[in-house]
Amino acid sequence: MAKGITSRKEDYSKWYQDIVKEASLAEHSAVRGCMVIKPHGYAIWENMRDQLDKMFKDTGHVNAYFPLFIPKSYLSREAQHVEGFAKECAVITHHRLMNDPNGDGVVVDPSAKLEEELIVRPTSETIIWDTYKNWIQSYRDLPLLINQWANVVRWEMRTRLFLRTAEFLWQEGHTAHATSEEAVEEAEQMQRVYAQFAEEYMAMPVVKGIKSPNERFAGAEETYTIEALMQDGKALQAGTSHFLGQNFAKAFDVKFMNENNKEEYVWATSWGVSTRLMGALIMTHSDDAGLIIPPRLAPTQVMIVPVPKPKPEIDEAVHKLMAELRAKGISVKYDSDKKKRPGFKFAEHELKGIPVRVAIGMRDLDKGVMEIARRDTKEKEFIEVAKVAEHIEQLLVDIQDNLFQRALEFRDHHITIAEDFDEFKDILNNKGGFISAHWDGTTETELKIKELTKATIRCIPLDAKEEEGSCILTGKPSKKRVLFAKAY
Amino acid sequence: MAKGITSRKEDYSKWYQDIVKEASLAEHSAVRGCMVIKPHGYAIWENMRDQLDKMFKDTGHVNAYFPLFIPKSYLSREAQHVEGFAKECAVITHHRLMNDPNGDGVVVDPSAKLEEELIVRPTSETIIWDTYKNWIQSYRDLPLLINQWANVVRWEMRTRLFLRTAEFLWQEGHTAHATSEEAVEEAEQMQRVYAQFAEEYMAMPVVKGIKSPNERFAGAEETYTIEALMQDGKALQAGTSHFLGQNFAKAFDVKFMNENNKEEYVWATSWGVSTRLMGALIMTHSDDAGLIIPPRLAPTQVMIVPVPKPKPEIDEAVHKLMAELRAKGISVKYDSDKKKRPGFKFAEHELKGIPVRVAIGMRDLDKGVMEIARRDTKEKEFIEVAKVAEHIEQLLVDIQDNLFQRALEFRDHHITIAEDFDEFKDILNNKGGFISAHWDGTTETELKIKELTKATIRCIPLDAKEEEGSCILTGKPSKKRVLFAKAY
Repeated sequence: MAKGITSRKEDYSKWYQDIVKEASLAEHSAVRGCMVIKPHGYAIWENMRDQLDKMFKDTGHVNAYFPLFIPKSYLSREAQHVEGFAKECAVITHHRLMNDPNGDGVVVDPSAKLEEELIVRPTSETIIWDTYKNWIQSYRDLPLLINQWANVVRWEMRTRLFLRTAEFLWQEGHTAHATSEEAVEEAEQMQRVYAQFAEEYMAMPVVKGIKSPNERFAGAEETYTIEALMQDGKALQAGTSHFLGQNFAKAFDVKFMNENNKEEYVWATSWGVSTRLMGALIMTHSDDAGLIIPPRLAPTQVMIVPVPKPKPEIDEAVHKLMAELRAKGISVKYDSDKKKRPGFKFAEHELKGIPVRVAIGMRDLDKGVMEIARRDTKEKEFIEVAKVAEHIEQLLVDIQDNLFQRALEFRDHHITIAEDFDEFKDILNNKGGFISAHWDGTTETELKIKELTKATIRCIPLDAKEEEGSCILTGKPSKKRVLFAKAY
Repeated sequence: MAKGITSRKEDYSKWYQDIVKEASLAEHSAVRGCMVIKPHGYAIWENMRDQLDKMFKDTGHVNAYFPLFIPKSYLSREAQHVEGFAKECAVITHHRLMNDPNGDGVVVDPSAKLEEELIVRPTSETIIWDTYKNWIQSYRDLPLLINQWANVVRWEMRTRLFLRTAEFLWQEGHTAHATSEEAVEEAEQMQRVYAQFAEEYMAMPVVKGIKSPNERFAGAEETYTIEALMQDGKALQAGTSHFLGQNFAKAFDVKFMNENNKEEYVWATSWGVSTRLMGALIMTHSDDAGLIIPPRLAPTQVMIVPVPKPKPEIDEAVHKLMAELRAKGISVKYDSDKKKRPGFKFAEHELKGIPVRVAIGMRDLDKGVMEIARRDTKEKEFIEVAKVAEHIEQLLVDIQDNLFQRALEFRDHHITIAEDFDEFKDILNNKGGFISAHWDGTTETELKIKELTKATIRCIPLDAKEEEGSCILTGKPSKKRVLFAKAY
């Protein structure tokens, strides 16, 4: 167990906080609920963002930027939307401060009250559809395939770094289509893009499914989700994509002339992932020694440590190796700090999740080898100097695969079938993970199960088989199993 | 003159608005003072951001992210800072809405009043230095070289797209140093980075200088600036870098133990450029036919248009050319829309500022040539098919150079020496541009000149020669000329 890190077994929640703190990923700020994303955490997020951005552009999307503020009245235009979002948000009422007439500091200038209050965006459907109204007249203007990278604010009383914060960073795609079919296909496509990103880059297996009506996005006709499983057996919703029907087009009066010269409301989708993925990444792979970053998202993939400290022969070998690795597109750093001992450095790089560490000492160099350590299994081996770069190139692939396989085995081992409610509760309390069970399809039953067990329906898996059965709670007929779990 | 674009001669300000609108760069939103950056505008901004980000990282900086909100009391901690920034800003007073008890819609929940109001960041010195307090204990923690890409809000009554908006996008670097010398060197370095970016990427010549005390950033000891000249003869401050001394360290009590084990306040810099650069880019190069984008920042460098429309032989030649261009790292698109005529497409791509257009028709192909048009001079020439890719590669370099040279000649022609105040006013009213004149060094004189002429001191150029003279207004002795201009 690393210094400063509580073990998962002892206190999983504390372990998570310790990792975030000790690996210098983020911290709470002086502003309630808002976090500071520190350079190491932000560099991982940048890699996620850049990869997602590429995948969005490869599927035909472009980026734009919409206002941070939303007029209060916009929120109530779409009836379901306001129910889901209006409640907890940052409200701007004034636009000026003035020197306090009674002494130090500044106070709000009462004469600068806004006629209509503004809300800091909790999500941007309303302001974007208000804008789309002016951009869409004819089927020739469709589809609009637009994404934005932005900060959003949802006032939260109980916050956890990355997982639930008042301000967070995210992307939100907002697309407009001429037909329902095309919009549904877009929402499904983005779910696939998210799943591919989660599995191939984050090495995090996910279940693709649809949300029950109760768990749908406020204003959506269908919500597609990818659900991941954390090491404590709790599920985490990692990304959602919504088919919004014509709800926002109707609320903001966005119509277009179709190919037959008939006026119709536009069909919509929206989809998003956020800095919450950082929390998912941490909780999928990390261990009691610290963070583990999958190589494809690691800002530094290889760290070289001189043993015991830099000297000309070592530096020469290091620079040759760095050039070889960089030529292969591998990111590498040399920790040449003379004030810190190798053991200290090893612990620090392990804590920060660097996938591969190379230790280079004179004794090894004389034998023609370098010591290569992998973060995921902590295995070390000595490799001939001439073969190190090639070895590392393969090792990074192996680590990425191993992390995914390890998480997949854990996840698959934690999808358990329950046939009755006692079994359901027993699994939930003693094993955790997803429970595959029949459900009668009603919100009433879903809410009752949540009340009794804290478990919610995470999704109805896309690959769920048609199967006759009876609801785990009510015994009423059911045609499909759904996945329940306690969730973040 | 392009459809929808007022000529510069007729109405320069209207011309600017027309370009922003017709080239689909940005538009006003429903929220007063906030803009929507449209996909074409955002793609140019992304290229700026990516290049600047690379230059920041190459000079040793890392990115992080700090909160959107700042507690009101923080603003008044640094006395000068609050004077410069506190006045016009978005103030958050409540954190909840509720259904209107009297009917439709939502109202602010009076029970959700914040104990202390929050301000949407107008700049982040205060929240960042409050954070740095916990990050810095010893000289070993220094320097901190951190940048953030973020949105900021400064309430503005009179807004102009990109040039002055309530919300804008920017980057803000905030560095912490052990010595005054190192901090000054950092501020100077970032001024050089900005100047290099402006000249090499935006093709926009700038004057590097320092600001007079009156024009300094609120809380700075010295402000370094790069000043550009727009086509209407007005100056535009394109980027600033500030040496903040120990002002913020003192305001937020940030001390460190130096190498001699003595406690000292930390030295600071901050530096930023914003989406205002988009306005500068437009006004430096564009003409009455539309936008002109320098090749190094163009999202699409080459547009290929089939004449009159796509057909297999043309498509084949296009795909071969596109592969050749992409192999050279050139971004290219094929406008294969069958519904629009070539003339319409030519006008659209010209309007949007695509640097190079290739027209491919059967008659030309039979002759073994393609028509290449450059946006900057609007010249066209026929080039042998086999040589087109290579020709374009060179042409993009030539266009970039030509845009810079053209802007440089204009700028140099518009730096005029004035020896007395009548001459000063005459130049200002009839020629515009920078006026190089002696100034007695007092804020009083500076403000008087501003009051009389609307001209301000843009900067004291770094390369200003020591030269005996008398102040243009007061006749008092002066040792250096400074640059005056009317400014955006």
